[in-house]
Amino acid sequence: MYAVKTNSVQKKVIHPGVSIKWLIKREDGAPSFEMRLLVIEKGGSTTGRPHPFEHEVFVTAGKGKIAGDGETIAVTAGDAILINPNEKHQIINSGDEPLEFICIIPNGKEDRIK
Amino acid sequence: MYAVKTNSVQKKVIHPGVSIKWLIKREDGAPSFEMRLLVIEKGGSTTGRPHPFEHEVFVTAGKGKIAGDGETIAVTAGDAILINPNEKHQIINSGDEPLEFICIIPNGKEDRIK
Repeated sequence: MYAVKTNSVQKKVIHPGVSIKWLIKREDGAPSFEMRLLVIEKGGSTTGRPHPFEHEVFVTAGKGKIAGDGETIAVTAGDAILINPNEKHQIINSGDEPLEFICIIPNGKEDRIK
Repeated sequence: MYAVKTNSVQKKVIHPGVSIKWLIKREDGAPSFEMRLLVIEKGGSTTGRPHPFEHEVFVTAGKGKIAGDGETIAVTAGDAILINPNEKHQIINSGDEPLEFICIIPNGKEDRIK
Protein backbone atom coordinates (compact mmCIF):
# COMPACT_ATOMS: atom_id res chain seq x y z
CA MET A 1 0.00 0.00 0.00
CA TYR A 2 1.26 3.44 -0.85
CA ALA A 3 -0.44 6.54 0.57
CA VAL A 4 0.23 10.23 0.23
CA LYS A 5 -1.41 13.43 1.47
CA THR A 6 -2.00 16.06 -1.21
CA ASN A 7 -0.65 18.75 1.11
CA SER A 8 2.68 16.93 1.42
CA VAL A 9 3.30 16.76 -2.34
CA GLN A 10 5.38 19.43 -4.05
CA LYS A 11 3.49 21.22 -6.80
CA LYS A 12 5.04 21.97 -10.16
CA VAL A 13 3.91 24.87 -12.33
CA ILE A 14 3.46 23.52 -15.86
CA HIS A 15 1.89 26.54 -17.53
CA PRO A 16 1.08 30.06 -16.26
CA GLY A 17 -1.65 29.63 -13.64
CA VAL A 18 -1.61 25.82 -13.88
CA SER A 19 0.14 23.51 -11.41
CA ILE A 20 0.33 19.76 -10.95
CA LYS A 21 0.96 17.43 -8.04
CA TRP A 22 1.80 13.82 -8.91
CA LEU A 23 -0.03 11.77 -6.27
CA ILE A 24 0.48 8.18 -7.51
CA LYS A 25 3.21 7.54 -10.06
CA ARG A 26 4.57 4.43 -11.73
CA GLU A 27 7.74 5.16 -9.72
CA ASP A 28 5.58 4.61 -6.60
CA GLY A 29 4.59 1.18 -7.88
CA ALA A 30 1.45 1.97 -9.91
CA PRO A 31 1.05 -0.97 -12.33
CA SER A 32 -0.75 0.79 -15.17
CA PHE A 33 -2.09 4.31 -14.50
CA GLU A 34 -0.98 7.43 -12.66
CA MET A 35 -2.97 9.94 -10.57
CA ARG A 36 -2.34 13.66 -10.42
CA LEU A 37 -4.05 16.70 -8.89
CA LEU A 38 -4.18 19.76 -11.10
CA VAL A 39 -4.99 23.29 -9.96
CA ILE A 40 -5.92 26.07 -12.37
CA GLU A 41 -5.90 29.50 -10.79
CA LYS A 42 -8.61 32.10 -11.41
CA GLY A 43 -8.35 33.30 -15.02
CA GLY A 44 -6.10 30.41 -16.03
CA SER A 45 -6.46 27.60 -18.53
CA THR A 46 -4.56 24.68 -20.00
CA THR A 47 -3.22 24.77 -23.55
CA GLY A 48 -5.83 22.45 -25.08
CA ARG A 49 -3.28 20.39 -26.97
CA PRO A 50 -4.57 16.88 -27.67
CA HIS A 51 -2.49 13.76 -26.98
CA PRO A 52 -2.87 10.15 -28.03
CA PHE A 53 -4.08 8.80 -24.67
CA GLU A 54 -7.07 9.35 -22.43
CA HIS A 55 -7.57 11.56 -19.40
CA GLU A 56 -10.07 10.68 -16.71
CA VAL A 57 -10.92 13.71 -14.61
CA PHE A 58 -12.83 14.21 -11.37
CA VAL A 59 -13.45 17.81 -10.30
CA THR A 60 -12.92 18.33 -6.57
CA ALA A 61 -13.31 22.13 -6.28
CA GLY A 62 -14.15 25.22 -8.30
CA LYS A 63 -15.96 25.89 -11.55
CA GLY A 64 -14.72 25.56 -15.08
CA LYS A 65 -15.31 24.85 -18.73
CA ILE A 66 -13.78 22.25 -21.00
CA ALA A 67 -13.58 23.20 -24.66
CA GLY A 68 -13.39 20.03 -26.74
CA ASP A 69 -13.81 19.22 -30.41
CA GLY A 70 -16.91 21.24 -31.31
CA GLU A 71 -18.36 21.33 -27.81
CA THR A 72 -17.78 23.21 -24.58
CA ILE A 73 -19.11 21.86 -21.32
CA ALA A 74 -19.43 23.48 -17.90
CA VAL A 75 -17.94 21.52 -15.00
CA THR A 76 -18.02 21.83 -11.25
CA ALA A 77 -17.11 19.78 -8.15
CA GLY A 78 -18.47 16.24 -8.40
CA ASP A 79 -18.28 16.00 -12.18
CA ALA A 80 -16.38 13.18 -13.89
CA ILE A 81 -15.09 13.63 -17.43
CA LEU A 82 -13.53 11.24 -19.93
CA ILE A 83 -11.35 13.01 -22.49
CA ASN A 84 -10.71 10.60 -25.32
CA PRO A 85 -7.34 9.99 -26.97
CA ASN A 86 -6.51 12.68 -29.56
CA GLU A 87 -9.37 14.91 -28.43
CA LYS A 88 -8.82 18.65 -28.05
CA HIS A 89 -9.54 19.71 -24.46
CA GLN A 90 -8.82 23.15 -23.11
CA ILE A 91 -9.70 23.30 -19.42
CA ILE A 92 -10.60 26.82 -18.30
CA ASN A 93 -11.21 28.17 -14.81
CA SER A 94 -14.43 30.18 -15.19
CA GLY A 95 -14.95 30.85 -11.47
CA ASP A 96 -13.46 33.02 -8.76
CA GLU A 97 -11.76 30.20 -6.85
CA PRO A 98 -9.06 27.73 -7.97
CA LEU A 99 -10.38 24.93 -10.17
CA GLU A 100 -9.04 21.64 -8.80
CA PHE A 101 -9.33 18.20 -10.31
CA ILE A 102 -7.91 14.71 -10.19
CA CYS A 103 -6.58 13.55 -13.56
CA ILE A 104 -5.61 9.94 -14.29
CA ILE A 105 -3.58 8.87 -17.32
CA PRO A 106 -1.93 5.65 -18.48
CA ASN A 107 1.57 5.07 -17.08
CA GLY A 108 4.49 6.99 -18.47
CA LYS A 109 2.64 9.28 -20.86
CA GLU A 110 3.52 12.60 -19.25
CA ASP A 111 6.89 11.89 -17.66
CA ARG A 112 8.20 15.13 -19.19
CA ILE A 113 6.15 17.14 -16.66
CA LYS A 114 7.11 15.10 -13.59
CA MET B 1 -15.75 13.77 -24.41
CA TYR B 2 -18.01 12.08 -21.92
CA ALA B 3 -19.12 13.90 -18.76
CA VAL B 4 -21.35 12.94 -15.87
CA LYS B 5 -22.46 14.57 -12.64
CA THR B 6 -22.13 12.37 -9.55
CA ASN B 7 -25.60 13.40 -8.41
CA SER B 8 -27.14 12.08 -11.63
CA VAL B 9 -25.66 8.58 -11.29
CA GLN B 10 -27.69 5.81 -9.67
CA LYS B 11 -25.97 4.31 -6.66
CA LYS B 12 -25.81 0.58 -6.09
CA VAL B 13 -25.47 -0.93 -2.62
CA ILE B 14 -22.74 -3.58 -2.81
CA HIS B 15 -22.39 -4.46 0.88
CA PRO B 16 -24.27 -3.27 3.98
CA GLY B 17 -23.40 0.42 4.39
CA VAL B 18 -21.33 0.54 1.19
CA SER B 19 -22.55 1.92 -2.13
CA ILE B 20 -20.96 2.55 -5.51
CA LYS B 21 -21.60 4.89 -8.41
CA TRP B 22 -19.90 4.04 -11.69
CA LEU B 23 -18.82 7.41 -13.09
CA ILE B 24 -16.70 6.42 -16.12
CA LYS B 25 -17.05 2.88 -17.47
CA ARG B 26 -15.59 1.04 -20.43
CA GLU B 27 -19.16 1.04 -21.76
CA ASP B 28 -18.87 4.86 -21.84
CA GLY B 29 -15.76 4.59 -24.00
CA ALA B 30 -12.99 4.43 -21.38
CA PRO B 31 -10.01 2.85 -23.17
CA SER B 32 -8.28 1.21 -20.21
CA PHE B 33 -9.49 2.16 -16.71
CA GLU B 34 -12.79 2.86 -14.98
CA MET B 35 -13.70 5.45 -12.34
CA ARG B 36 -16.17 4.91 -9.50
CA LEU B 37 -17.28 6.85 -6.41
CA LEU B 38 -17.71 4.75 -3.29
CA VAL B 39 -19.53 5.84 -0.14
CA ILE B 40 -19.16 4.02 3.19
CA GLU B 41 -21.73 5.05 5.76
CA LYS B 42 -20.87 5.71 9.41
CA GLY B 43 -19.93 2.40 11.05
CA GLY B 44 -19.52 0.62 7.72
CA SER B 45 -16.59 -1.06 6.03
CA THR B 46 -15.68 -3.03 2.93
CA THR B 47 -14.95 -6.74 3.09
CA GLY B 48 -11.18 -6.49 2.70
CA ARG B 49 -10.98 -9.23 0.11
CA PRO B 50 -7.90 -8.85 -2.10
CA HIS B 51 -8.07 -9.08 -5.90
CA PRO B 52 -5.42 -9.45 -8.55
CA PHE B 53 -5.50 -5.85 -9.83
CA GLU B 54 -4.75 -2.43 -8.37
CA HIS B 55 -7.04 0.19 -6.89
CA GLU B 56 -6.11 3.87 -6.98
CA VAL B 57 -8.12 5.81 -4.43
CA PHE B 58 -8.61 9.53 -3.76
CA VAL B 59 -10.56 10.42 -0.62
CA THR B 60 -13.03 13.27 -1.21
CA ALA B 61 -14.87 13.39 2.15
CA GLY B 62 -14.90 11.83 5.60
CA LYS B 63 -12.39 9.96 7.72
CA GLY B 64 -11.39 6.34 7.58
CA LYS B 65 -8.83 3.62 8.02
CA ILE B 66 -7.44 1.13 5.55
CA ALA B 67 -6.31 -2.18 7.01
CA GLY B 68 -3.79 -3.75 4.67
CA ASP B 69 -1.28 -6.58 4.93
CA GLY B 70 0.27 -5.91 8.34
CA GLU B 71 -0.45 -2.20 8.40
CA THR B 72 -3.41 0.07 9.04
CA ILE B 73 -3.35 3.66 7.85
CA ALA B 74 -5.63 6.58 8.67
CA VAL B 75 -7.05 8.44 5.70
CA THR B 76 -8.99 11.65 5.18
CA ALA B 77 -10.05 13.98 2.38
CA GLY B 78 -7.14 14.79 0.07
CA ASP B 79 -5.32 11.49 0.58
CA ALA B 80 -4.36 9.31 -2.39
CA ILE B 81 -3.77 5.59 -1.89
CA LEU B 82 -2.41 2.88 -4.15
CA ILE B 83 -3.63 -0.58 -3.18
CA ASN B 84 -1.46 -3.11 -4.94
CA PRO B 85 -2.71 -6.21 -6.76
CA ASN B 86 -3.44 -9.08 -4.34
CA GLU B 87 -3.12 -6.83 -1.30
CA LYS B 88 -5.65 -7.11 1.53
CA HIS B 89 -7.43 -3.79 2.04
CA GLN B 90 -10.38 -3.33 4.33
CA ILE B 91 -11.63 0.24 4.12
CA ILE B 92 -13.38 1.37 7.32
CA ASN B 93 -15.36 4.52 8.03
CA SER B 94 -13.96 5.70 11.38
CA GLY B 95 -15.73 9.07 11.43
CA ASP B 96 -19.23 10.42 11.99
CA GLU B 97 -19.89 11.38 8.36
CA PRO B 98 -19.95 9.25 5.20
CA LEU B 99 -16.49 8.31 3.91
CA GLU B 100 -16.39 9.07 0.19
CA PHE B 101 -13.66 8.23 -2.28
CA ILE B 102 -12.91 7.91 -5.96
CA CYS B 103 -11.60 4.47 -6.90
CA ILE B 104 -10.05 3.67 -10.27
CA ILE B 105 -9.46 0.13 -11.54
CA PRO B 106 -8.37 -1.43 -14.84
CA ASN B 107 -11.20 -1.99 -17.32
CA GLY B 108 -13.60 -4.87 -16.81
CA LYS B 109 -12.30 -6.12 -13.47
CA GLU B 110 -15.45 -5.53 -11.41
CA ASP B 111 -18.22 -5.86 -13.98
CA ARG B 112 -20.07 -8.12 -11.54
CA ILE B 113 -20.91 -5.09 -9.37
CA LYS B 114 -22.00 -2.81 -12.21
